[in-house]
Formats: sequence, structure tokens, C-alpha cells
Amino acid sequence: MSTEKATGQPPHPALLIPGPIELDDDVVQSMSHYAESHVGAPFCNTFGETLSMLRKLFQTTSPQSQPFVIAGSGTLGWDMVAANVVEPGDEVLVLHTGYFADSFADCFETYGIKATQLKAPVGDRPQLPEIEKALTSKKYKALTVTHVDTSTGVLSHLQSLSELLARVSPSTLFIVDGVCSVGCEELHFDNLRIDVCLTASQKAIGCAPGLSIVMCSGRAMESFHNRKSPPGSYYGSFVNWLPIMQNYEAKKPSYFATPPTQLVHTLHATLTQVLSRPLSERFEQHKKMSQKVKKAVADLGLEQVASKPENQANGMTAMYLPEGLTPPEILTSLVKKGVVFAGGLHREIASKYIRFGHMGVSVMDEGRGDIERAIEALREGLAEVQREKGDKS
Amino acid sequence: MSTEKATGQPPHPALLIPGPIELDDDVVQSMSHYAESHVGAPFCNTFGETLSMLRKLFQTTSPQSQPFVIAGSGTLGWDMVAANVVEPGDEVLVLHTGYFADSFADCFETYGIKATQLKAPVGDRPQLPEIEKALTSKKYKALTVTHVDTSTGVLSHLQSLSELLARVSPSTLFIVDGVCSVGCEELHFDNLRIDVCLTASQKAIGCAPGLSIVMCSGRAMESFHNRKSPPGSYYGSFVNWLPIMQNYEAKKPSYFATPPTQLVHTLHATLTQVLSRPLSERFEQHKKMSQKVKKAVADLGLEQVASKPENQANGMTAMYLPEGLTPPEILTSLVKKGVVFAGGLHREIASKYIRFGHMGVSVMDEGRGDIERAIEALREGLAEVQREKGDKS
Repeated sequence: MSTEKATGQPPHPALLIPGPIELDDDVVQSMSHYAESHVGAPFCNTFGETLSMLRKLFQTTSPQSQPFVIAGSGTLGWDMVAANVVEPGDEVLVLHTGYFADSFADCFETYGIKATQLKAPVGDRPQLPEIEKALTSKKYKALTVTHVDTSTGVLSHLQSLSELLARVSPSTLFIVDGVCSVGCEELHFDNLRIDVCLTASQKAIGCAPGLSIVMCSGRAMESFHNRKSPPGSYYGSFVNWLPIMQNYEAKKPSYFATPPTQLVHTLHATLTQVLSRPLSERFEQHKKMSQKVKKAVADLGLEQVASKPENQANGMTAMYLPEGLTPPEILTSLVKKGVVFAGGLHREIASKYIRFGHMGVSVMDEGRGDIERAIEALREGLAEVQREKGDKS
Repeated sequence: MSTEKATGQPPHPALLIPGPIELDDDVVQSMSHYAESHVGAPFCNTFGETLSMLRKLFQTTSPQSQPFVIAGSGTLGWDMVAANVVEPGDEVLVLHTGYFADSFADCFETYGIKATQLKAPVGDRPQLPEIEKALTSKKYKALTVTHVDTSTGVLSHLQSLSELLARVSPSTLFIVDGVCSVGCEELHFDNLRIDVCLTASQKAIGCAPGLSIVMCSGRAMESFHNRKSPPGSYYGSFVNWLPIMQNYEAKKPSYFATPPTQLVHTLHATLTQVLSRPLSERFEQHKKMSQKVKKAVADLGLEQVASKPENQANGMTAMYLPEGLTPPEILTSLVKKGVVFAGGLHREIASKYIRFGHMGVSVMDEGRGDIERAIEALREGLAEVQREKGDKS
């Protein structure tokens, strides 16, 4: 159980799922903010600073880059891409590394965009030669990749994809689903020539859930401005939100729909913490702790869903259970030890694996001991469940 | 300034705009909840209870009624109606009492639905004979009404609209925008035969902003189930959310997109308070305090935007300023006195009026003195600004 501090959170099981994640005490406190006008100077300042900090988090200095922060789940970011950046009749190539590519493809189809998925076997990712073949076979308006698929823990390689696009299809927009990567995996928006990176507040950024965060390049915004048809969403329309985001970033009031003022304060609080140290240190620390987890998992004789080391995410680990054990058995045992892991999400293998999220404060603040305690709980839990099952058989 | 209590909020100006509104201390505290799994038993219980409490708030006992609570602004509720309950080619009649009808109509058009607006002069509402004429002139799939238009403070009469529909167009769905009414105006979902009522968390319900709340009748859900085309939104699709809401209400885990766990706790906290007393008392108290505000406004010689007493909302008052005074002058003066009012929103008259929100804890807890202090501040502020202008001229 987490320790109760004078100003801290009540004791509770350590949340080590791939999002939402444990929150820093100050971040938790920042949520209980008194009510404020969404168009008053204090909130405009807070929101403006938050949008500017997002540019730093995404490592973009181009003045053409455009951040959006909208009340919603990360999923809303897909609608914002599908309804604004591409348009009906466009074709997109969706790289599939798990559950979330299927859903993104569904989202595109909802808005009349033809999505072609390039699927790899479970735990792997599509390889460059086949991606090149697809990209040269027809004109794709956009390529999408899930940087880390939360259902499998498979990490995709943005650098090689960016280079491939530059070489064989430079007009194709590069769209990155960074829901489980922004804040824990290296991601340099400008250097990687990313056109849209979307994420959510409740993962490695370390905020509460409830904010959809999207960063667009100048080229993505140009694609939006050059649309022949109006955006396919009202709530997610850039026509409605672009002036609002630009005004807030200039610390000026404007209104389309009421932003979630408390959650914006929370995002401000966590971004202030995240950016107080070089991002490279943050990524290194996530790598280091991920290696620790992955070594412990291997020592327990468990295989990762992401089968090759170069495919393995640094903010989570998806692991197959030993033959005969089910996710509910081990998850229940872990909860009794004060640790919350997640069950499987990828339909083909859901009953065979569990997921361990190691992002944010649990990784950055080693003094909390969250990761060590979770590894120990996993070791003990597996042994206990196996023993109990052995006794019964 | 609000008083600081031992367990309370820091001193801050009293927020008396028509949403977001002042929050109760316990409600503010409920926001700073530690991170929780969105599919764990504790959160499933909280969300399930919250959905059940919403049935009580809307006064619906029909098991066919279906609540939705989704991360988003109130505006998202329009998308949910336009993308699920009606479909491309349908015609809807939009009763216009201010800014928000124009926006709702825009939203319908985004999803391929033809919206015909019936407009009244500013401060008034369309009258029954002309609505009857419109409804009998062609087949409308739905009629929409803004119960209280936040831009004008005009209150529409649901009972007479419901009766009119039953008499002349019983198959037309009755859709109520209750963003500025649910929690402060009488609204009996079943008795009024409402098919969809949408609202937002940050107004009379007394929660933080960030949740879109929608209640659908069995008939609205039937209309959704009988669609010939798939829903026009992905994030707002009932196909995606219906099983999730049904599972959460049954306190079972399921996943489409991560709900904002802390905000759901906050909604749970405020609904528990709201429902601890008969709703009739709550509506009576809002009427009583509204009358107090309206009398003070009249005593100051100010006219309301909602010109006729029967058109005046009970949770807010929109008032024209004396000739020669501008909203920024008076709003700045009020902020100095620790009271935040809102400027105008209706484009035709925006520079001539201000808005005073009187909903939720500021009205229910008279001991706070928020309303009296605001009335006094308005009186003094007007006098000061007029004196200053007089001195200069």
C-alpha cells in the first residue's frame, strides 16, 4: 500500500496498469481547485501556459505546430484526426500492432475514410519492406502508427518510419498515436517530421483522465485548411477549436465549449513537474526501470507478448501467464498485495496474459518503491496461485 | 470573497456566472481522488451508482431510459443526439431562444440533418401557434428546445410543448437541451415525455466541468437501434458507449475509452448532495432566490433580456446595462468586489448586457451569502462606474 503522507493521498493499492497511472501528491491536490470562469484572466493564463508547455513536451519549436487540449478521452483524438486532417475519399494506411489499430481504423471508416490495415502477428510489428511495398502500391493520404500499443506493449520505431516516408512517399502525412508513449518514450515531433501526434492525459504525462491532447504540424493544419468538405465532427471540429486554442495560448478569452478547468490545472501541474528536468533523463529512467521489470519477468520464466527486445515498450510490459493460470486468479492475488495490474485486451490472447504499467511517478520517484513492490508481489502472487492450484489438483 | 474554512477552499472571488458555478467544499475535495483503475470494482461501483442517481435527478423510472456520462463538454451531447438519434436526411425543428439554438443547428448540419430554426425576437421565445403551424407543415423527426438559453436567460415551457407534440405530431422526438436547467428548473423526464435531455456537469448539478450527460427515452433508443446508417461519430457513438454504460450501471467492468475517474467521483459527490433533499425543494429555492435577484435588478432600473416574467429562467438573470455603460467596465468593478459575472454571448446584443448565474450551492446554502453579496456588489459597482464616467464627462 502507498504510504500516507501528511499532505498526501490516503492509502490505496498502487495503480500499475498501462494508464491511468499513480499520481504525484501535488498533482492530486491540484485537481481540487475552486470553480473559475473559463474566460477569466486567471484561467486563460493557466491554459495558455499549459499549451505552451505541451510544445516543449512534444519537442516542437515550429511556430506552425498547433496543440489542442479538449475535454474527452484519448479516443477523441482519433475523431479529431479522421474528421479534420483527412477527408472522405482519402485512403490511410494503418500499421497494426494490437487492439488500438483496429479501433483507429473503425474511427476512420466512420468518417468515410478508407483504412487499410497492415497487420503483423500478435506481439510483432509490420516490417519496413512490406510497409514500403504498401506505400508505393497506391497513394495514401496518411500513415498511422501506434507508438506503443497498450494491448500488447509493442513499441514501433518512429525514426525508420519517418525515413521511409521521406524516401518513398513524402506527401503522406505521418500520424502517431502516442497515447501510451508521450511522456515515457523518446518522441521528437519536429525531428521525426510527425504531422499529428495524439495522446491522453492519464498515461505517462501523469494527469487524471479526461483530456484529449493533439499536436498538429503546419502540414497537418494545411491539410485541414485545404479540405474540400467541412469537418465530419462538430464537437471535434478544428473550425470550432482552432481559434479557441490560439486565443487561449495568447492568454485571451474565447468560447466554443466550456473546458474542464480543474483538469487543465492538473495538466499544468504535471507538465510543470515533467519539464523541470531534461526530457532525456525522463526517457532514460523509464528505460532503466523497464529493463528491471523485463529482467524480473524473464527470471520468473514468463514470456512477453512483445516477443523481440527491439519491439518492447519502456512504459509497460505485457506478459503471458504460465500455462494453467488465468488473469483473474493472478490479478486478484496482486490486489490483495496492494498492487493493481491489468488484464489482457487483445482479443486473440486476452485470457492468456496480463499487463504491468510502469510510467510516470512510480518510475521517476524510485523512493516510492512502487516498481520493486510490484515485482515482489508478482513473484509471490504467481507462487501462491500455483501452489493453491497444485494443492487442489 | 468566500470565507476560508478549515477544510475548505482558499479565498477566491464568488463565481456567479451561468456555469461553471461555485462548488461545495466536499465536492471540491472529492476531485482530488487517487488514481484508480477504470475497470476495477471500486470505480465500477462508483460509476454504477452515479448512473442510477442520474435517473433520479431526471425523474425517470422507466427501465427503458438510458443515461450516458462521457468525458466531454456539454456540447458533445449535441453530437450524440445528431449522430445517433436522428440520421442523415431527417429534418429537425429547432426552437431558437438564443445563441445555443444556432450552434445546435450547426451541429445537426454537420451530421447531414436538415435543421429548420424557428426564431423569436431577442429575449422572447417562439409561440405555440407558429410551432404548431411548423409541425403540421411537414414531418419533423425531432423538435429541439433549449430549456434555458444561457445567452439570454430565456426559459422555455416544456409542458405546453410536450402537449402540443402529443396532439399534433406524436411521432416527433422531443429533445431538450437542459445544459442550464437540469438541477435548477423543474424537469420531469417521464411526465414530460422527453426523448432526449442533454446537460453538462458544471451548471446547476454543481460538479466541475468535463462531463457530458445525456438521458435517452426508450423511444430515442429505438430510433437509434432502427437507424439505416451507422452513427456519424466514433467517440460519440451509442454503438460504442451503450454496452459500456449498461455494464457500468450493473457495476461490471468494460472498456471503450477511459472515463475520467476523478470527475465521475465528483459527479457522484454532488448528486449524493442534490438527492439528499426532495428535488421540489431545490426547484423552489432556486425560484425564491431568482425572484430576489430579479427584484433587485428591477429596483436598479435594469431591464432583463428575457422581457416577460413567464420567460425568465430561475438559475440566471441576463440584464441590459444602463445606457453608456459597457460590460467590461462593470465586470471589472465587480471582480474588485470579489464577484465574477459573465459578459454577453448573444451576438446581436453582446455589448449591451451582462449575466448573473444563481444556481447550485450559492442558492441552496444561503449562509454563504453569495447572492446577497453579489446584489450589493452590483448596486455599488453600477453606482461607482456611473460616478466615474460622470466625473470624466
